[in-house]
Amino acid sequence: MESVIQLGINAKKAARKLAQASAKEKKAALFIMSELLIEKKDLIIAANQKDLAAAETNGIKGTMLDRLSLDEDRILAMAAGIDQVADLPDPVGTIHSMRTLDNGLKIGRQSVPLGVIGIIYESRPNVTTDAGALCFKSGNAVILRGGKEAIHTNKAIISILQEALSQTDFPQESIQLVEDTSRASSVALMTLTDYLDVLIPRGGAGLIKAVVENATVPVIETGVGNCHVYIDQHAQLDMAKDIIVNAKCSRPSVCNAAETLLIHEEVAAAFLPEIEKALSEYDVELRADDKAAAILSSSVPATQEDWEIEFLDYILAVKVVSSIEEAMEHINKYSTGHSEAIVTDDYAAGQRFLHEVDSAAVYINASTRFTDGFEFGFGAEIGISTQKIHARGPMGLPELTSYKTIVYGNGQIR
Amino acid sequence: MESVIQLGINAKKAARKLAQASAKEKKAALFIMSELLIEKKDLIIAANQKDLAAAETNGIKGTMLDRLSLDEDRILAMAAGIDQVADLPDPVGTIHSMRTLDNGLKIGRQSVPLGVIGIIYESRPNVTTDAGALCFKSGNAVILRGGKEAIHTNKAIISILQEALSQTDFPQESIQLVEDTSRASSVALMTLTDYLDVLIPRGGAGLIKAVVENATVPVIETGVGNCHVYIDQHAQLDMAKDIIVNAKCSRPSVCNAAETLLIHEEVAAAFLPEIEKALSEYDVELRADDKAAAILSSSVPATQEDWEIEFLDYILAVKVVSSIEEAMEHINKYSTGHSEAIVTDDYAAGQRFLHEVDSAAVYINASTRFTDGFEFGFGAEIGISTQKIHARGPMGLPELTSYKTIVYGNGQIR
Repeated sequence: MESVIQLGINAKKAARKLAQASAKEKKAALFIMSELLIEKKDLIIAANQKDLAAAETNGIKGTMLDRLSLDEDRILAMAAGIDQVADLPDPVGTIHSMRTLDNGLKIGRQSVPLGVIGIIYESRPNVTTDAGALCFKSGNAVILRGGKEAIHTNKAIISILQEALSQTDFPQESIQLVEDTSRASSVALMTLTDYLDVLIPRGGAGLIKAVVENATVPVIETGVGNCHVYIDQHAQLDMAKDIIVNAKCSRPSVCNAAETLLIHEEVAAAFLPEIEKALSEYDVELRADDKAAAILSSSVPATQEDWEIEFLDYILAVKVVSSIEEAMEHINKYSTGHSEAIVTDDYAAGQRFLHEVDSAAVYINASTRFTDGFEFGFGAEIGISTQKIHARGPMGLPELTSYKTIVYGNGQIR
Repeated sequence: MESVIQLGINAKKAARKLAQASAKEKKAALFIMSELLIEKKDLIIAANQKDLAAAETNGIKGTMLDRLSLDEDRILAMAAGIDQVADLPDPVGTIHSMRTLDNGLKIGRQSVPLGVIGIIYESRPNVTTDAGALCFKSGNAVILRGGKEAIHTNKAIISILQEALSQTDFPQESIQLVEDTSRASSVALMTLTDYLDVLIPRGGAGLIKAVVENATVPVIETGVGNCHVYIDQHAQLDMAKDIIVNAKCSRPSVCNAAETLLIHEEVAAAFLPEIEKALSEYDVELRADDKAAAILSSSVPATQEDWEIEFLDYILAVKVVSSIEEAMEHINKYSTGHSEAIVTDDYAAGQRFLHEVDSAAVYINASTRFTDGFEFGFGAEIGISTQKIHARGPMGLPELTSYKTIVYGNGQIR
């Protein structure tokens, strides 16, 4: 697709310039972006009204409509987000493990931007500024491809960011938007091998799957979280209850929310009724295996699919297990590799869980909801990787860099 | 393809066991492998004879036949390679940056194996033991898919490695071979998303391209090296001559050999005749642009393709440039991102080259031939990555690991 290739050509050119920029120049440009975003907020709100009107015509409502909607406060929050990213340590140029080889060569690893990053995402327009700022701060050119529901809003935001860039020495093409929101433009981005160094999809399982199947560029998979909490026979009831309520109910629509509760048979009879009571305050529907159903006062029989999917809702699958081995086997079979927690006072059980469960974040006695770039102290995140190469778990600025080996010689040959 | 899926199932199961193994257990198993390889060398040589006979029937000769061929010395070298890998520091289990958050959570990053690694490679059977040992040492299960020319040899080697594993507590499926060498088995491996964490192709441009186009699993591209040496106007002639002769002629068939010489116009008339003389001792064919051709006593006109490809032979493209900018522009346009060198005594030119050339390894005053895991002090290498995500340049054992975040809590909720 012609237009997407042109974005690629522009981005690659901009990336070369960006890679050479100083931390100071990038920081200053980000502050200009956030200022202009506030100054021109009415432009964004007007564009957002168009998207909201179209959404209502198309029958979009509730949470979906709320996610799309921007007001002054949300725009101020977006601007504050850009400022926060501006203030983070610059991840580019760090030189690691410089050393002198026997032959006198001095070699080291210098962190460098990835180059050109593509991001495909769904409705929320705040991703446009978040991802734009993170990629820019890490010296990468970015091509954003948001959802068609937010196209007017995204166009307004990008025009403001580019106007801010025009007041600096940076190319406006440092941050670009795919304005065509057809499926074809999305596929064009996934196969832009000559220009894209990495593609990061941010969205639901359907989007991630489409990207994995179609992409020929390197991809970092993010976000799908079928997270588990296992309550061991040596758990404290109150702690277990607090953790499962928090993991399920504090924000069910996000990827680090728990979807399945596994509970040891020795404590199932004593704990499950208490947990059911606590969860009933949030009207959580329990989908239980036979053993759990026999204890719970109200539940739906769990189907095979219930172990496999992310409900992203007030629904929890519940299974009674006879051992930590059975719990870990279930997790390693069904988990998407995002976040899992054990609740236990048993030292050995906790250690085994940490070591044998193969997920991005593994917890003893804490809620899975902590898997997040801000909570982990990264200051920001571009997404949560559920694959093992390059980055795993929340990705901050350092995860948006690569490195090169720099070698200082004085005539060495091999 | 049924059989490849079965290998995937076996490998995933083996990987879980391998991830839990201690450094000591893995090291001991590797020594058993190398011992048994020596003990059963006749078995390998007999199998290799079959492959050599088939190769000769198919008209394979020269370097290709030599690469395929094994004798006692080469088998001893393969065994010594396994021992070397055994003695390297274990890359698994290292815990980085453990810290306590404000809420009391203790969090850190622990290095873990990638899981299941697929390797597709061409003729050389020593890759079977090298890659097998490296993946095993880093706690990964590996599925090897070698070329059909070496199938008997590879089967013999794998049967010995598996026999060695059977003398340990490790599953034999820790190291497996795809015995079917059809194109279909190769494609099956590239799309084994349920079981493969990463696929590393090792081979020529054709193989890498096929993998990038067909793979749905994460891929680390390796090896294609269109490497450049730029001789600046402030270079020393003798150093420039030694470096270009070494970079081109010491081993033209490898990826870190130079393919293009760029030379500043101010020194072209003085240097090129000397360089031509030095290269003529190796019968290097020079493919020159007009300006270079006017100076050289004997050359072939360079075509567009000559700037783009890896000759892997005693052929060198030569171009006269008017500035370092023109040199870097040429490099960033045609390079495969492997290795590039500048020869200069000018401080600023060297620094600019290091910072602005976007390749895995960038040299001042040294030969590109140093881009190699052993030369860089990694003790071994599984390949040289030419992409930017996960790993760039020579990949040693740490590049065969991922990490997980481990979190110790005492009831924290968010």
